[in-house]
Amino acid sequence: MADEENAYSFTTRASQLIKLSRLGKNGFPMRRGGRLPEVTVAYESWGELTPGADNAVLIFTGLSPSAHAASSSEDSSPGWWEYMIGPDKAIDTNRFFVVCMNSLGGCYGTTGPGSLNPETGNKYGVDFPNLTVEDIAGTGHELMRELGVENLHAAVGSSMGGMASIAYAIQFPQNLEYLIAISAAAQALPLSIAIRSLQREIIRSDPAWKDGRYKTGEEPLAGMALARKLGLVSYRAADEWNSKFDRSKIPEEKLTGKPFEIDFEIESYLEYNAQKFIHSFDANSYQYLSRCMDWFDIAEHGGSVDAGMAKIKVKKALIIGVTTDILFPLRQQRELADSLSATNTEVDHVEIDSPNGHDAFLIDDRQFSPVVAKFLSESYG
Amino acid sequence: MADEENAYSFTTRASQLIKLSRLGKNGFPMRRGGRLPEVTVAYESWGELTPGADNAVLIFTGLSPSAHAASSSEDSSPGWWEYMIGPDKAIDTNRFFVVCMNSLGGCYGTTGPGSLNPETGNKYGVDFPNLTVEDIAGTGHELMRELGVENLHAAVGSSMGGMASIAYAIQFPQNLEYLIAISAAAQALPLSIAIRSLQREIIRSDPAWKDGRYKTGEEPLAGMALARKLGLVSYRAADEWNSKFDRSKIPEEKLTGKPFEIDFEIESYLEYNAQKFIHSFDANSYQYLSRCMDWFDIAEHGGSVDAGMAKIKVKKALIIGVTTDILFPLRQQRELADSLSATNTEVDHVEIDSPNGHDAFLIDDRQFSPVVAKFLSESYG
Repeated sequence: MADEENAYSFTTRASQLIKLSRLGKNGFPMRRGGRLPEVTVAYESWGELTPGADNAVLIFTGLSPSAHAASSSEDSSPGWWEYMIGPDKAIDTNRFFVVCMNSLGGCYGTTGPGSLNPETGNKYGVDFPNLTVEDIAGTGHELMRELGVENLHAAVGSSMGGMASIAYAIQFPQNLEYLIAISAAAQALPLSIAIRSLQREIIRSDPAWKDGRYKTGEEPLAGMALARKLGLVSYRAADEWNSKFDRSKIPEEKLTGKPFEIDFEIESYLEYNAQKFIHSFDANSYQYLSRCMDWFDIAEHGGSVDAGMAKIKVKKALIIGVTTDILFPLRQQRELADSLSATNTEVDHVEIDSPNGHDAFLIDDRQFSPVVAKFLSESYG
Repeated sequence: MADEENAYSFTTRASQLIKLSRLGKNGFPMRRGGRLPEVTVAYESWGELTPGADNAVLIFTGLSPSAHAASSSEDSSPGWWEYMIGPDKAIDTNRFFVVCMNSLGGCYGTTGPGSLNPETGNKYGVDFPNLTVEDIAGTGHELMRELGVENLHAAVGSSMGGMASIAYAIQFPQNLEYLIAISAAAQALPLSIAIRSLQREIIRSDPAWKDGRYKTGEEPLAGMALARKLGLVSYRAADEWNSKFDRSKIPEEKLTGKPFEIDFEIESYLEYNAQKFIHSFDANSYQYLSRCMDWFDIAEHGGSVDAGMAKIKVKKALIIGVTTDILFPLRQQRELADSLSATNTEVDHVEIDSPNGHDAFLIDDRQFSPVVAKFLSESYG
């Protein structure tokens, strides 16, 4: 189904591809202008939808993950949020019909810069229209309608996905009961913009970038590796690395003695993880998804953050932040929680003291699971 | 004097060049092996040396500054530490003979990778031997002997220069009375190593790098610009940028509407500062100086940080850290101060609450000047 649309796709084994069928003849209109004539969304699901279609949970991902959030009978490999989703887990698939989608603009099956434009027969590349978090949320809404779900029990997301879950709540206030936003923000701050902007520029400085018109097999991998290393530096926290690596050196026999080669374990760790990443992500998708986080600003929905947040009509929201997050610092989750409270939305605001920085939600099962489990179990019954 | 030795040099107007004359026929032996047949040091000085040569203060710089720390009759342009050095200023040139040197390995006149190797007639480039902070301190000691100073009243340094001032105190305990180390550390932590390692790799990924054998006029400027931006991100602090830039956009008429071009003021600020930097710094010097900070480890002087610090015999030390420094965090200055106290060296330990991050010592006159002035004025009398 629609394989030809995804010329540059790392679609995971179990992902279902669905073409959004309710778009008008103008296709999907993008928030910053332009349109997509067709949109295919890759998703995975766990659990069963009730006959009343009232138990759906939609998960929005961060920048890099696919729809494979958890293992399933179709794909037993661990998902990126394996600890969180499953029978009797915090997002309990005995109770909920859980859907995770690959974001619009991504490269794991959903329409993105690597897809073919059906109107030209060519890859979109950098002719893909400007992408916003709101567009990601909008395609999530369309996906759920395709699956027979008009109203979500909960929208859940972390990092970029947390922004998308909030955008969903603002844009579709009548279609959402509960909101969970983890390590998210009402708008990007300059330090986060600077770090992401630099990652994108590093990729574009790779001669293989070729203005985004690189061919399959000739991707700007060197630039991607450097950008990923900078990403990793921003996702984690200093003290975690102090205890994990300290000043350990790589084994003596691997040292060349040359001043610029890998010497410390931390350098080796970054190299290993960067190499693992670059063969599974499209450089153009990276540009678009990274940029949409910089642009995200709830104040665009009514003139101020409070005005935007006031549009949210959920029964209750859960806002989680992490003490050591430098990319989406605690003050940003406080802002979200305060703004919800100020507009009379009930909110649980939890600050998790984890050494794992922005990535904590991927790692810190012990602290995250009870918080999410409690919130969701209180949301029905 | 020795112009031919500094083929790649941005020597500032007032810098004096002096060839170290007391080196034996083997030249200057480098700590990690290899040697320099000759060493020229660029320095500037302010104030007068007493007949007893007992009022000398030597300033070691961070990675990028030249010896031009303050203005003078020879060069009236402001120096990089203009607020700190001068008549009646914190480092009082009415009282002290103040010397600032361009570091060994640098590109402002002192022998470095851009200099000609007198034994081959070619630029050192990446054949320059491995450089350590201790080598920088050692050439500082030789410089002062050339100037007729056997014993320093004080060694002062910030960032890499703070490491060098500590290295001086450890290596020449009989030749130093007072030590000032600002935003320094006993050893580099993995996050700082990661950030610097990535900057160096970004430069080496520029095709113009050519394994360090680039020609004058064909330097890897694109890589240098990206590395400098990453440096700037690490030198400053999030809240400073929040108040300075927030989410301000560049003027509408400069917006192209293309998704990857400069949009936010923070991006424009980084671009401006990077472009300013790249035409005044040598890429090979950047590699060597950056790497020597990663390698610095006081534990190499006796088996542990405490054992290394125990070699210091100053009358008193001043250790300053800044609350918002992510590159040399407060815990590292606490470690220095605790270690000095534990070995019975009197120490003033000051934590400055400044929004300016690692760069605070360059900016925060109001908070730094009184602390340094008090320490130095109590050091004589």
